[in-house]
Amino acid sequence: MLQIDGTKTKTPTSPRELIHSIGTTVTLQGAIYKIRTMSGFAFVIIRTHNTLVQGIYHPDFSEFPLELLKEEACVTITGKVVEDKRSKTGYEIHLMKVKILSSPIQVLPVVINNKNMVVSMDTLIDYRPITLRNEKERTIFKLQEGICRGFRSFLFLNNFTEIHTPKIVSAGAEGGANIFKLDYFGRDAYLAQSPQFYKQMMVGVYERVFEIAPVYRAEKHDTSRHLNEYISVDFEMGYLEDYTELMHMETQMLKYTLDFLKSNYAYELDLLKVNLPEISGIPAIRFHTAKEMIAKEYHREMKDMEDFEPEEEKLLYEMIKKRTGSEFVFITHYPSKKRPFYTMDDRENPELTLSFDLLFRGLEITTGGQRIHNYREQLSKLISRGMNPEAFDSYLMLHKYAVPPHGGLGLGLERFTSRLLEQSNVRYSCLFPRDINRLIP
Amino acid sequence: MLQIDGTKTKTPTSPRELIHSIGTTVTLQGAIYKIRTMSGFAFVIIRTHNTLVQGIYHPDFSEFPLELLKEEACVTITGKVVEDKRSKTGYEIHLMKVKILSSPIQVLPVVINNKNMVVSMDTLIDYRPITLRNEKERTIFKLQEGICRGFRSFLFLNNFTEIHTPKIVSAGAEGGANIFKLDYFGRDAYLAQSPQFYKQMMVGVYERVFEIAPVYRAEKHDTSRHLNEYISVDFEMGYLEDYTELMHMETQMLKYTLDFLKSNYAYELDLLKVNLPEISGIPAIRFHTAKEMIAKEYHREMKDMEDFEPEEEKLLYEMIKKRTGSEFVFITHYPSKKRPFYTMDDRENPELTLSFDLLFRGLEITTGGQRIHNYREQLSKLISRGMNPEAFDSYLMLHKYAVPPHGGLGLGLERFTSRLLEQSNVRYSCLFPRDINRLIP
Repeated sequence: MLQIDGTKTKTPTSPRELIHSIGTTVTLQGAIYKIRTMSGFAFVIIRTHNTLVQGIYHPDFSEFPLELLKEEACVTITGKVVEDKRSKTGYEIHLMKVKILSSPIQVLPVVINNKNMVVSMDTLIDYRPITLRNEKERTIFKLQEGICRGFRSFLFLNNFTEIHTPKIVSAGAEGGANIFKLDYFGRDAYLAQSPQFYKQMMVGVYERVFEIAPVYRAEKHDTSRHLNEYISVDFEMGYLEDYTELMHMETQMLKYTLDFLKSNYAYELDLLKVNLPEISGIPAIRFHTAKEMIAKEYHREMKDMEDFEPEEEKLLYEMIKKRTGSEFVFITHYPSKKRPFYTMDDRENPELTLSFDLLFRGLEITTGGQRIHNYREQLSKLISRGMNPEAFDSYLMLHKYAVPPHGGLGLGLERFTSRLLEQSNVRYSCLFPRDINRLIP
Repeated sequence: MLQIDGTKTKTPTSPRELIHSIGTTVTLQGAIYKIRTMSGFAFVIIRTHNTLVQGIYHPDFSEFPLELLKEEACVTITGKVVEDKRSKTGYEIHLMKVKILSSPIQVLPVVINNKNMVVSMDTLIDYRPITLRNEKERTIFKLQEGICRGFRSFLFLNNFTEIHTPKIVSAGAEGGANIFKLDYFGRDAYLAQSPQFYKQMMVGVYERVFEIAPVYRAEKHDTSRHLNEYISVDFEMGYLEDYTELMHMETQMLKYTLDFLKSNYAYELDLLKVNLPEISGIPAIRFHTAKEMIAKEYHREMKDMEDFEPEEEKLLYEMIKKRTGSEFVFITHYPSKKRPFYTMDDRENPELTLSFDLLFRGLEITTGGQRIHNYREQLSKLISRGMNPEAFDSYLMLHKYAVPPHGGLGLGLERFTSRLLEQSNVRYSCLFPRDINRLIP
């Protein structure tokens, strides 16, 4: 009987560390990223799991014909580590032996081994399985990993419990028609627009909870800001004294995460030349005040009094940055009728809510707020909106059997990544985007 | 302009640590879990975010009437920490003041404050928003958090990159009719049965990747082992020399995670009286050999020669445990026709595959194996199965443009948790289960 004891796992050499191995002979695995033939020798760039490595092919020490190498072939190479101050890693590898493990059957349909991908966004996404092999492209998602790790690490430190809630649901939490419908064994079911009901239920269990998972919006918008499936970073916390605690918590989370990236993803930040925002404090402005400020500063007419136009979000960003230096701004007290039925109204003016959005570089990346925790209050708000309380039986259990004052928020991971990297379209920060026109790859 | 600088976040007192604060006066938040009136005083158990705390109500020091307290009310209490060797925490709290933050409007429909929930599984799940407040119930999912953290931590240490792939897809990866269909802006789309295609694509990008996310199986089974939506822990790794490396990696991951739980979730392990398995090595047996061993040992007729019956999985567990002490067993070399089209066949016998399942305490918790990486081989396997290669255009890019030899696996989080806790039904390890009859809560 074969015994699997866990010993047969290689710890791969980390090519980023080879600068400490000058003069030694090493074995590396990776794909041939680029071959540049010179007179009498060749540069052979190898894409390893975390960095590009410059290999030198030279008949003096290479024991194989150069013709053996093809771009994108997967290889094991043996070579000598030689100091080279001009290369990014500080070293190059004199290629001695190569073993071809896997070879492309044809030349790639797009050039992926230049510094930047110079193709349209559609081509970039159509060919994702190969365009992601571009050094910069893959680094975007490595950094996104770091963002998630930073968030998670912060939330664990602050006593949040990680949960997994269902994405197939019997009713939408956010209301409206923007919901995907599916056949669930002969019954109608929907894809969750958010984990809202579930995270509120879990506040009664653990006090503070979070989830990082996909959510679904069947919005027909085809804009640079919308995805129909995206990753939502959701948290919800109990024993709130004041809805501003939510904004303080998010501010801390963002600070922590940016510091986490600096400490753990410096290589990626550098490669992508990320212009990291500084957060000392984030201004919070009431929605109506912000509307007025924009109108005044830019001599604009206020049209939609219940929401921002995308252009206004950009102007607000400019204005706040100029005045305070902050690239983030919280907008608070959105009109009640524009917020979902579970949002707590402002005691001082019930037409407004104790809710907020966070805008980052001109784009809304978070929606949050305090929730109604009183049963009668929630019931009467449902009824006043013409909704049927019976459809919310299991949700209302949380109010009926007492839940502490609480609130929370959802942050769009792709939007945050995209603004951090100052991209022109949120799709650039999604591995395999889903939009109204796109279901593949 | 209000400045949000992150300072207004309380670090809640951790009630588990109060044993170090004997004699001091503290303020705690939580829900009244249980009131036991004695003659002249009362025990008031408070459910805080991570432990139950025993409070003592006594007219001598309590500055409020006992009638003020209701079970499940959310409160802020102020009291003195007094040593008490009989209580689990080592202390009790003499309740001085209380502030009621939120109150239930009626008595709970199920008793949640006994040691164990003594209700049917259906009742337990129907009332999830409140039954999860039971101490043991909530601890199951706290431990599940620990399992995920352990997996993640191990995978990061081993150079895996965390990815997020779409769950709305244009075709199923696992084949068969067990797939949920939805209307995607007038087109047919499906819910992903696994991240298979995507994680394989990403092997060409990062070498090693993982994802912890929901997957969907429209199976009509109504058994103790099936959920229609569950959390799959998926990893995929490149530069395999041998498919057994996958089993070694999983063995290491499990060892690491069990150790992680011992170090970081000892409180939960103790509360649930978890019988942690010991892993020194995990036996690996070929599928046909296992079938024969079971038939011989238990004098059973072999019926289905292509799969195990659930009863056989249980017998196999008994037999392997008796013979080797292991509660895990890998089964390898499943018949090719029972495995998906991307599975690599065994060179020595193409009717078998380089694939495996991992059984834990008689239940399959993992399916994995080496994948085909050669384009022509994958193409001819698709064709030989009567499948249309054009439907897999973007998937086949990964083979066409070279991917290293690779493989991976998927582990069902709820199944693993459920076997670890020796539960009779996998639903007990899912916060809000989805099955053929259940879509709420």
